[in-house]
Amino acid sequence: MTRFRLGPNRYGKAETHLVRVTRDGDVHHIRDLTVSVALSGDMEAVHLTGDNAAVLATDTQKNTVFAFAGEYGIDSPEGFALRLARHFVESQPTIRHARVAVEEHPWERIPTSGGKRHSFVRSGGETRTALVHHGEKTTVVSGLKDLVVLNSTDSEFWGYVQDRYTTLQETRDRVLATEVTARWRHATAEGDWEGSYPAARRLLLEAFAETYSRSLQQTLYAMGERLLEGRPEVCEVRLELPNKHHFAVDLEPFGLANDNEVFYAADRPYGLIEGAVLRDGAPDPGPAWS
Amino acid sequence: MTRFRLGPNRYGKAETHLVRVTRDGDVHHIRDLTVSVALSGDMEAVHLTGDNAAVLATDTQKNTVFAFAGEYGIDSPEGFALRLARHFVESQPTIRHARVAVEEHPWERIPTSGGKRHSFVRSGGETRTALVHHGEKTTVVSGLKDLVVLNSTDSEFWGYVQDRYTTLQETRDRVLATEVTARWRHATAEGDWEGSYPAARRLLLEAFAETYSRSLQQTLYAMGERLLEGRPEVCEVRLELPNKHHFAVDLEPFGLANDNEVFYAADRPYGLIEGAVLRDGAPDPGPAWS
Amino acid sequence: MTRFRLGPNRYGKAETHLVRVTRDGDVHHIRDLTVSVALSGDMEAVHLTGDNAAVLATDTQKNTVFAFAGEYGIDSPEGFALRLARHFVESQPTIRHARVAVEEHPWERIPTSGGKRHSFVRSGGETRTALVHHGEKTTVVSGLKDLVVLNSTDSEFWGYVQDRYTTLQETRDRVLATEVTARWRHATAEGDWEGSYPAARRLLLEAFAETYSRSLQQTLYAMGERLLEGRPEVCEVRLELPNKHHFAVDLEPFGLANDNEVFYAADRPYGLIEGAVLRDGAPDPGPAWS
Amino acid sequence: MTRFRLGPNRYGKAETHLVRVTRDGDVHHIRDLTVSVALSGDMEAVHLTGDNAAVLATDTQKNTVFAFAGEYGIDSPEGFALRLARHFVESQPTIRHARVAVEEHPWERIPTSGGKRHSFVRSGGETRTALVHHGEKTTVVSGLKDLVVLNSTDSEFWGYVQDRYTTLQETRDRVLATEVTARWRHATAEGDWEGSYPAARRLLLEAFAETYSRSLQQTLYAMGERLLEGRPEVCEVRLELPNKHHFAVDLEPFGLANDNEVFYAADRPYGLIEGAVLRDGAPDPGPAWS
Repeated sequence: MTRFRLGPNRYGKAETHLVRVTRDGDVHHIRDLTVSVALSGDMEAVHLTGDNAAVLATDTQKNTVFAFAGEYGIDSPEGFALRLARHFVESQPTIRHARVAVEEHPWERIPTSGGKRHSFVRSGGETRTALVHHGEKTTVVSGLKDLVVLNSTDSEFWGYVQDRYTTLQETRDRVLATEVTARWRHATAEGDWEGSYPAARRLLLEAFAETYSRSLQQTLYAMGERLLEGRPEVCEVRLELPNKHHFAVDLEPFGLANDNEVFYAADRPYGLIEGAVLRDGAPDPGPAWS
Repeated sequence: MTRFRLGPNRYGKAETHLVRVTRDGDVHHIRDLTVSVALSGDMEAVHLTGDNAAVLATDTQKNTVFAFAGEYGIDSPEGFALRLARHFVESQPTIRHARVAVEEHPWERIPTSGGKRHSFVRSGGETRTALVHHGEKTTVVSGLKDLVVLNSTDSEFWGYVQDRYTTLQETRDRVLATEVTARWRHATAEGDWEGSYPAARRLLLEAFAETYSRSLQQTLYAMGERLLEGRPEVCEVRLELPNKHHFAVDLEPFGLANDNEVFYAADRPYGLIEGAVLRDGAPDPGPAWS
Repeated sequence: MTRFRLGPNRYGKAETHLVRVTRDGDVHHIRDLTVSVALSGDMEAVHLTGDNAAVLATDTQKNTVFAFAGEYGIDSPEGFALRLARHFVESQPTIRHARVAVEEHPWERIPTSGGKRHSFVRSGGETRTALVHHGEKTTVVSGLKDLVVLNSTDSEFWGYVQDRYTTLQETRDRVLATEVTARWRHATAEGDWEGSYPAARRLLLEAFAETYSRSLQQTLYAMGERLLEGRPEVCEVRLELPNKHHFAVDLEPFGLANDNEVFYAADRPYGLIEGAVLRDGAPDPGPAWS
Repeated sequence: MTRFRLGPNRYGKAETHLVRVTRDGDVHHIRDLTVSVALSGDMEAVHLTGDNAAVLATDTQKNTVFAFAGEYGIDSPEGFALRLARHFVESQPTIRHARVAVEEHPWERIPTSGGKRHSFVRSGGETRTALVHHGEKTTVVSGLKDLVVLNSTDSEFWGYVQDRYTTLQETRDRVLATEVTARWRHATAEGDWEGSYPAARRLLLEAFAETYSRSLQQTLYAMGERLLEGRPEVCEVRLELPNKHHFAVDLEPFGLANDNEVFYAADRPYGLIEGAVLRDGAPDPGPAWS
């Protein structure tokens, strides 16, 4: 009599760090990806008895990442993830579903005087992300993280609930800063990934900068809406916006004014605002976000 | 004509770091928690117009954490989270659902010669976790993370799929090491949280140590099964087990044998095995795991 | 009879995170600094008996950082550190020496369509550093860290010692990548800090890119030399260059060639090359680097 | 005409992560070390011209770490570091000085019912450290880091300097918490390393717990003094004690008292107290601490 059963499960090789150089004569190109694969399928036996007959080893998954980078190059994080995900499901009868997550670390060229073009500097700023699921259906989510932005004015916060534990003073002028994690779901698995990403990033930045904000939630919605308005290929946006509190320092004890110019940037605790904005008629996401 | 709409959303104060001392004469007790609150409810207006009338400020949530610690003390991470979650939902008509996540950092007493008992040392090892949801239903998930374990033998790996990209050699003896993240869902929101946790932790350790392993998936299932067998109050276990690869170093070039005694402990990439084990008849989790 | 004695010591407030906005009408400017102060002086009593009469509290040091930011603004990391260091030593008879370390986190403007100019994005990339000592003498060290650079060719490594433990294959073409920590000492405590820094940074990048390298040590020296050649105000450069190994992946098992195009970027272990380059006649550094 | 010259330099392989299992029948033992080697010597040529003839490749250094672990085992971090340092200097004419730094990550056995003894759990808490220099002289520094301790009373802070920027209120009762980094220099390079370390650790803990503290500097000195009193083989102790501030939360607005029982544990900024305690007649350290 079985009393217990296996629930949802997946396995794979996480964080394979791949750098792909393309040599076009003296002009080199570079893409720098961290790739995480997770597969699921006929995995009862391996859990219950340790029989690995249905298991594609995680080491093999890693090899496949490197081999595909060599054979096909990296056209885009999304495209590379799609190619890998389809390969695992279509080449292995025991694999029913593949999830491939990619992070891309951006590089810029170092300006040099000679004709050689093989020197690069990590540009920092945000990390580009892609998350692909391939199984019963195929979904593509693009995104970015670690994008830190700040408005030094045009932000208010007042009119909130007052209860026994409320001590916060209302403000009509504050710094609003956050570290954006944004992900946007594409309506289909076909796309101009390399054109779409920088446009989406620009829309997010513009919406953050141009929104006169009475709450970080309002800014969040404005960012999602702006992206949906500007990019018809996107059907849903999800944002995680930590409120990186900048507290104006009281300088009065030192005989000084502080007209919102001197701030203490706190680490913890922090507000955390999470939300989704959807286009009417967006298709069911399935496991797209998981 | 509305073309866009607000999807799932929540907001709150994350990572309020609270230390609660209880003074029982010269004998002091300490609990050290990081508390993250996330609320949801009638939040259309704040997203669409910045009207904060339905918003309980995250600063107020933080104050509530400290005030409750003072007024009620910390009986357990689960109990404290339940008290907070119920308060937010029941005291605010606009709040329909509360999620409270707690991490507890363990301390031990420093042995001292005198009668005083107010000195402590962080015991390291794992962090205890609790995740409570309160809304239409109430769910409690206990857990731990950062529990690093290793078996120096009794682990094999062979019999897996061989495809074009497979180069891994089969092995009948390897080191198996992982950093356990385990969470277990309670069937009800009533429990002996302080008794249940150490027992569950012990069962996980024992199952890891005593399972002769042919795959990390097999070990995962054994750990979940052992916990369900030993703790009837638990209805589901979810585990995330990164395979912290320990590669036997080839010492032959140096004229030395290596009978599985010298290992290079690699950081990345790593295998990642995730899975759930459920008791038959486990109630629907709702948002318990999210 | 005293058998023990107090050795070198210092104390202060570390990592005060200060953001200074300057409002020039609708055009705002921002500087984002982490400031660490360490003071030393007549500190026998506080160590031996707990008498704090000579101690300027670290909380007061933090207040001073914020107050000076308000009163004087931030002209440059070096200038701000100098002002603080001089203040502590000159205003407190018990403080004989001050060390002020600053990290500056860079921001860029977000391009916006309207006339407002108060939106910023963290530009990532390197962190600018400044280290000032003020006591018997005054020294200024400028620098940067977290500057990650890569050459995809023009790097060799061969001709090294062969001993019993050597297995590395020689190479005439490899990727050379490093995360630069560079610090450069100024000959005097007067300087055009805001002009000097970007010029020094540019010289380091150019030297890295333009040096055909037979070892990372050679590249290190070339970077230091280039900076000294180009910036007469600098008398010494110290560099820490971790060799971020990029291993060409063997794709032969998969029937593929790898003409130095597919790399595994390893985390640990890594080579670490540290060295100084000095101008002849550089003054004695005293505690400048500590 | 040379205008520039090479200053102090060193190079080596950093953070080789080694796990050494010793199999004594069914009873296994484990040591888990991260080893960083830095060598210096006749390194003019490699810096100036890229000639590697004097260079022992960092890859070879890594191989040596693994080979020595296999051939000799790990008696202690200090002993292993000494063996490596002596090897590099004595086997290579171009290497004049070796620095070997070791971190040891502690493991405990998992209690199991059967006779097998090959299961371990990382015990967390502090990391043990060792730093050996071998060149003109040989020095050994033992230590630990990440040891977090807290006294919930018996700590005061008052009587400090009052200046224009002082706002801190004096206190006769506060929490004192710190994360200890301690290093202690041995008078000679011969020692009972495995006996000395746990005794030294215990003395540091006891001194922290038993010192009624009027300043963290007083506690620092008491810890150093206690270690020197108890361990005659040690001639100098250096401590870095960040003051992990625990601020009593003002609960009055909520109608609650707070008799030093509810604290907010802050991350940054933090006080940082650094100091050395020496035995009279301690030998010159040379580069022991660098």
